[in-house]
Amino acid sequence: MAFSPLDSTLLGPLFTTPEMAAVFSDRAYVLALLRVETALAKALFRLGRAPAGLAEALAALQPEAFDLNEIGRQTGRAGVPIIPFVAAVRRRLPPEFEPAFHAGATTQDISDSALVVQMRAAFALIAADAAAVIAGLAALANRHRLLPCIGRTYLQHAAPITFGFKAAIWLYGIAEVCEALPDLQRRVLVASLGGPVGTLAGLGSDGPALAAAFAEALGLGSAPIAWHTRRAAIVETGQWLNRLIGALAKFARDVVLLSASETAEVSEPLVVGRGGSSAMPHKRNPVLSENLCGLARLVRGMVTPALENVALWHERDISHSSVERMIAPDSTITLDFALARLTQLVDGLVVYPDNMAKNLARLGGLIHSQRVLLALTEKGLARDEAYVLVQRNAMPVWQGDGDFLERLKGDPAVTRVLGAGELEALFELSYHLRHVDTIFEKVFG
Amino acid sequence: MAFSPLDSTLLGPLFTTPEMAAVFSDRAYVLALLRVETALAKALFRLGRAPAGLAEALAALQPEAFDLNEIGRQTGRAGVPIIPFVAAVRRRLPPEFEPAFHAGATTQDISDSALVVQMRAAFALIAADAAAVIAGLAALANRHRLLPCIGRTYLQHAAPITFGFKAAIWLYGIAEVCEALPDLQRRVLVASLGGPVGTLAGLGSDGPALAAAFAEALGLGSAPIAWHTRRAAIVETGQWLNRLIGALAKFARDVVLLSASETAEVSEPLVVGRGGSSAMPHKRNPVLSENLCGLARLVRGMVTPALENVALWHERDISHSSVERMIAPDSTITLDFALARLTQLVDGLVVYPDNMAKNLARLGGLIHSQRVLLALTEKGLARDEAYVLVQRNAMPVWQGDGDFLERLKGDPAVTRVLGAGELEALFELSYHLRHVDTIFEKVFG
Amino acid sequence: MAFSPLDSTLLGPLFTTPEMAAVFSDRAYVLALLRVETALAKALFRLGRAPAGLAEALAALQPEAFDLNEIGRQTGRAGVPIIPFVAAVRRRLPPEFEPAFHAGATTQDISDSALVVQMRAAFALIAADAAAVIAGLAALANRHRLLPCIGRTYLQHAAPITFGFKAAIWLYGIAEVCEALPDLQRRVLVASLGGPVGTLAGLGSDGPALAAAFAEALGLGSAPIAWHTRRAAIVETGQWLNRLIGALAKFARDVVLLSASETAEVSEPLVVGRGGSSAMPHKRNPVLSENLCGLARLVRGMVTPALENVALWHERDISHSSVERMIAPDSTITLDFALARLTQLVDGLVVYPDNMAKNLARLGGLIHSQRVLLALTEKGLARDEAYVLVQRNAMPVWQGDGDFLERLKGDPAVTRVLGAGELEALFELSYHLRHVDTIFEKVFG
Amino acid sequence: MAFSPLDSTLLGPLFTTPEMAAVFSDRAYVLALLRVETALAKALFRLGRAPAGLAEALAALQPEAFDLNEIGRQTGRAGVPIIPFVAAVRRRLPPEFEPAFHAGATTQDISDSALVVQMRAAFALIAADAAAVIAGLAALANRHRLLPCIGRTYLQHAAPITFGFKAAIWLYGIAEVCEALPDLQRRVLVASLGGPVGTLAGLGSDGPALAAAFAEALGLGSAPIAWHTRRAAIVETGQWLNRLIGALAKFARDVVLLSASETAEVSEPLVVGRGGSSAMPHKRNPVLSENLCGLARLVRGMVTPALENVALWHERDISHSSVERMIAPDSTITLDFALARLTQLVDGLVVYPDNMAKNLARLGGLIHSQRVLLALTEKGLARDEAYVLVQRNAMPVWQGDGDFLERLKGDPAVTRVLGAGELEALFELSYHLRHVDTIFEKVFG
Repeated sequence: MAFSPLDSTLLGPLFTTPEMAAVFSDRAYVLALLRVETALAKALFRLGRAPAGLAEALAALQPEAFDLNEIGRQTGRAGVPIIPFVAAVRRRLPPEFEPAFHAGATTQDISDSALVVQMRAAFALIAADAAAVIAGLAALANRHRLLPCIGRTYLQHAAPITFGFKAAIWLYGIAEVCEALPDLQRRVLVASLGGPVGTLAGLGSDGPALAAAFAEALGLGSAPIAWHTRRAAIVETGQWLNRLIGALAKFARDVVLLSASETAEVSEPLVVGRGGSSAMPHKRNPVLSENLCGLARLVRGMVTPALENVALWHERDISHSSVERMIAPDSTITLDFALARLTQLVDGLVVYPDNMAKNLARLGGLIHSQRVLLALTEKGLARDEAYVLVQRNAMPVWQGDGDFLERLKGDPAVTRVLGAGELEALFELSYHLRHVDTIFEKVFG
Repeated sequence: MAFSPLDSTLLGPLFTTPEMAAVFSDRAYVLALLRVETALAKALFRLGRAPAGLAEALAALQPEAFDLNEIGRQTGRAGVPIIPFVAAVRRRLPPEFEPAFHAGATTQDISDSALVVQMRAAFALIAADAAAVIAGLAALANRHRLLPCIGRTYLQHAAPITFGFKAAIWLYGIAEVCEALPDLQRRVLVASLGGPVGTLAGLGSDGPALAAAFAEALGLGSAPIAWHTRRAAIVETGQWLNRLIGALAKFARDVVLLSASETAEVSEPLVVGRGGSSAMPHKRNPVLSENLCGLARLVRGMVTPALENVALWHERDISHSSVERMIAPDSTITLDFALARLTQLVDGLVVYPDNMAKNLARLGGLIHSQRVLLALTEKGLARDEAYVLVQRNAMPVWQGDGDFLERLKGDPAVTRVLGAGELEALFELSYHLRHVDTIFEKVFG
Repeated sequence: MAFSPLDSTLLGPLFTTPEMAAVFSDRAYVLALLRVETALAKALFRLGRAPAGLAEALAALQPEAFDLNEIGRQTGRAGVPIIPFVAAVRRRLPPEFEPAFHAGATTQDISDSALVVQMRAAFALIAADAAAVIAGLAALANRHRLLPCIGRTYLQHAAPITFGFKAAIWLYGIAEVCEALPDLQRRVLVASLGGPVGTLAGLGSDGPALAAAFAEALGLGSAPIAWHTRRAAIVETGQWLNRLIGALAKFARDVVLLSASETAEVSEPLVVGRGGSSAMPHKRNPVLSENLCGLARLVRGMVTPALENVALWHERDISHSSVERMIAPDSTITLDFALARLTQLVDGLVVYPDNMAKNLARLGGLIHSQRVLLALTEKGLARDEAYVLVQRNAMPVWQGDGDFLERLKGDPAVTRVLGAGELEALFELSYHLRHVDTIFEKVFG
Repeated sequence: MAFSPLDSTLLGPLFTTPEMAAVFSDRAYVLALLRVETALAKALFRLGRAPAGLAEALAALQPEAFDLNEIGRQTGRAGVPIIPFVAAVRRRLPPEFEPAFHAGATTQDISDSALVVQMRAAFALIAADAAAVIAGLAALANRHRLLPCIGRTYLQHAAPITFGFKAAIWLYGIAEVCEALPDLQRRVLVASLGGPVGTLAGLGSDGPALAAAFAEALGLGSAPIAWHTRRAAIVETGQWLNRLIGALAKFARDVVLLSASETAEVSEPLVVGRGGSSAMPHKRNPVLSENLCGLARLVRGMVTPALENVALWHERDISHSSVERMIAPDSTITLDFALARLTQLVDGLVVYPDNMAKNLARLGGLIHSQRVLLALTEKGLARDEAYVLVQRNAMPVWQGDGDFLERLKGDPAVTRVLGAGELEALFELSYHLRHVDTIFEKVFG
């Protein structure tokens, strides 16, 4: 019975998508290893150094053919899974294929190349799931492009925005991280074949050609020099995941804040059995969003150990492998789960325009004070003088007494400068929305 | 088929002990939840507010009675496992028990108390496994109490020590962290029963007495005020695990360094199938130790998210729960595995006294230069003058030319101050070992 | 002109208290080093191995006597400040004192002992400043012990609490961390005197006695075995600071949330020139609190490197020193600044009881639904049946239509079970406050 | 007197370069702010909305004209430095310039744009200093392209490499991180001008054009939508610095390891007054390298807080500012110092080819066992059979008894398959070096 939260029957549904779990299952790992050995066999064959049948024999092997329990036990003893895996494969090959099998490779060549093959699949899932979130946010943004709501700084009402503008910021924060993915993939999706110390010496007199053919067979890039102790691209992957989940958490955090009982501008999709409280039947807990905020902390933590992996020792140093074996699945699974949840959240987000309007009005018009201040100075008042006029009308309103526009209209020192019509114009929401279309063009154009 | 490294058939043996895995299995989690609900029933009964049979009925329930797949599915929907769990238990209780079941508790009371119950079991395993490591190191230290070897600063030969002294530092580094465990447990092993906002209001007019009886029934401490958003003790647990694995990694790191081909003062236990290289039959890779160094990075990373959990919001904020659900099992399992491996390492460590002697002699006696310097100044030479004498004899030796003692004996400016016998005495190892017994008394006394 | 934010004329006032800055000034560091050398001289004298005058001569030296620029330049070259410092002191001593000066100590003994001396002063400041925050929160809690406000879970209105209860949770979160300080100090405030590899060999035949006398002269504890590469206590200090600033940030975060324009239950002290906005004259930005939330992140980050310092190499390994030289001042200064700001915040916090009452009423009585549910089941209704009754009256209210109590009174299926008086009693706030006094006794008693 | 290590007279030389310190001095900060306000004035003028003289008046202001102590004091009160800075500038402007000054900008627009201006200067320094390190390593690599030394895995001798190959790995690890800088700069070096909530509303009817003109005047990029709460590029900068210092630390760590007394293949440049020990005149402590390893931990820690800055709240949230104000200077200064030190280290590194040869021979030829194994199987022996032959000759040699080649020559089971000449050929170093030129072409070509 599983015990880690990711694999747990009980808790897994709070951390894991089946699709990404399949990328990192034991079966998938064995398949990736077999695929790597097959590619090596193909490359050797191409250079005339392996029989044609070896690659076919390896490609025909299925994970089910192996006793994973036994390999696991030997892994515990050997300290690395590749040694027992290679031995198990060798036992399944006809003797004539043996010399060419795994020839010249070091264990780390196999496990690093397999890791990259798995990461390629992980990236593909993440890219697709991120695209779904972005599409959802684009629809949300465009649907509410001109729906006014209050903009907030430090949770204080500042000036009007639109809900679509807010969604566009969420979207752009996620999209700009995703834009860096192709470059990242180019750096990460690189095969490893250098032999124990990376010199290619054991790969034969045509070692460099073999390494190139191997990378090509895997559809991966080729490194100019061994990356056994150069893990910057792996680290960068973790850092990228980190920025991505940060951008997701920005959205989730805002949803939690907007769902506050006092604010109530949005709520999570109402799903039977979710977010309710057995004790408090009126509760609409934003559990998807809160969950995401926690997941972001987890992914942040997962990446920290990777940073220590950059300064590895000499030509090889196995200390990074425990770290990468853990964080590669854990961080991508957690992230993919976050993306899947976010799609649900975006697509089902309930928006309350009435409450947005109520909140816009909540401060009695004070959110327009900046415009009033500006208008007074534009009419020639000194800045300090204008400030005094605004403040003496704003303060009572802030204390709950009256409406800012009405007060201004009743202050002769103000009306001497600004007529009633001019004052009313300063309170129009359209002023704040006038550049939203231009901004949308830049974001979506 | 599992995919997370911890549960993986293939990789689990590099991360997990079966004993700690059992503490956090789905089965154990359900048992902990049942135990907590049973304790609540007992407390209610004691205050005359639940029928006698409720606690017995709950205590009789076994995890096998529940459809964990179904609860898992509902957990994915509800966002927390307690809501479907409570519903599933309720369905198994006779109707007359229903009103008293789970009365007054909030979901977080149940899950926090269950977490603490699981942590108690985790602490017990860790304490026992740490004691085994400490006992092993004590035996190692005492066995080699007076075995001389070189002491190193920045990997440079500095002055002689004994291998037992070195082991005593390893031991004390681990032991001093373990000494803090009882205090930590006192702070962590505290029941939670406060209701949704921690006021005890829903627990009845005798709420405080109920909370105390509940804690007593679980054998846990009782908090003066709700800890729903006070997670310092949980964070401290992670920090303690962090210091502990750091102390283990100090030992492991030194073993890797001492195993270097050039140094070769120790090697890991020779076990068939471990640490060898398919490619390089002479290799004795320190895989246990390297593995441990990687695990230490992992645990460090696991704890980072916990630190963000301290500043939770208002009376409850579920964002910490994803984090704690992950790091509680992951960090304790990883740590327990590290302890188990370390016991193997300590108990089987191969020590090479001949190589220690060779290394002590490697610098041609230069490691005694400090004593010579001191002796010259004690004989009345000015410090600068003495320094010059030492340096002019030391530098050729450092460049591989001759032996320091012989050179000194041949330098009249030296022998004018220190006779041959005096010089020889300065090269005696016993000088460096004279306080080792006193230090051992302090460490082991 | 300074450039680091801590020393910056412009930005320093956002990070630094003058008191803690004085603890870590260059002057204070030199004084600490002199104090350590003086203690060594006293210890040597006590064992008859130094002339009486040495300690006096050292104690008489003032930092002003040294050319710090020159020592700094040499430090850049030497890699450690102690070597040029010792040379500079030596030049100021009469020749007859020279042999006994610094005798037997290694540079790390001096710098570690000086670090501890500075940390002792830092702890004293922190303890005093934390006590001020706690006292302020105690006054706040007691002043508002029975002031009702809404309790929130995930920012959703859950059930009533009192503002004093909330403050008591803030207070207890800080106080419980502070309670661990004496134990921590006992572990950290320990002198170092072991010589280059910690064997005490170079300290003479009475080395252990010398080390004890040295520790006593400094008023510090004495380590059973060298802590050159055992940094757990230093790490623990960082972890403790981390928990402390986390507890402070919990309070600050809640203040930000409670200050939100829609919530407006508290605001930061109104100080001329603070938190206002040049553009928006009505703004009351919670700048003290927001600042604190950022500082908490900083301190979290500062501690991370310390965790890597536990696994140091062999008998000495200077890699920790850059880390500790930076995080000791930076984290304690930041923390002390946070405490100083928090005292201002607590003492001047503006509380708006009217808004608390408004917010309590905001959901039309729905926050009492749990009690209604319970009362219905206590009257014999099945749980599901009761839930339906509550939900059908709650949902319209949640959608803004009517008052929950009035609706219940109008639902015959409800009134058949609960009379109007009984229903009204269920909406009384006093129910939720009934255990607050008991809780206060536990927290403050 | 300064107290933070970075500004400290005593410790600063271990953390800081004067060039980078100048980028972040108070003076430079005020200049950056003035430059940003000047750019805004130019943009306003271009759109006909400011008098020509405003930009000139602002450009003419010097930091020396301001009372930084007073601005600092007000900053402590205001919580942000921009408010008192803007007021101080305003007081220095003729009244007719006042209305256009700072028009439409929010404080964060100014401080973010100034941060970016400072970061541009910081990137330029880092790029130049990294180029110097890379050039130094390229010279080192080419100088020792074919100097044989042992390659190590887990500190165990594995197979021969060349010292130039090792240096090429160091170089490529640094260079590949530097290659990502232009892309990063494109993402980071972006102006901010959006007004308080980012809608450009307050910037006038031609707000978008003004924002574009402003960015152009600063020579910065222009964001499609406000980045007040989108900090991914800032975070990415920290992550990049982290990867860079990791790559530097890889080199430094290897230098420490290669300098070990037993290994002694390199040493740090011998500089009078550095790395020596007052107590141990023969010591050559690798202080530059050890220092770098500590600095890498520091930078790792500095970046952690940035990761939490991604999930900021709503349209603005000042909590990131304390973090960025600290980590921008601290991390770039520390990194630049690391680069400067590394250049010294690379340029002056002392290489000991004799010791490399000695170490290559240390295992009695066992490092060639892999080739022997391969040759035996290529001659038709089964792998297991060949392994037995290799092991039975290797083990005695590993235990210090004899030479591997001689033993093989004396084992008839071996010589039956491989003649003496064939065996000798297997021990030739040239085999291991045969692809080094090709690899160099890829790295340097």
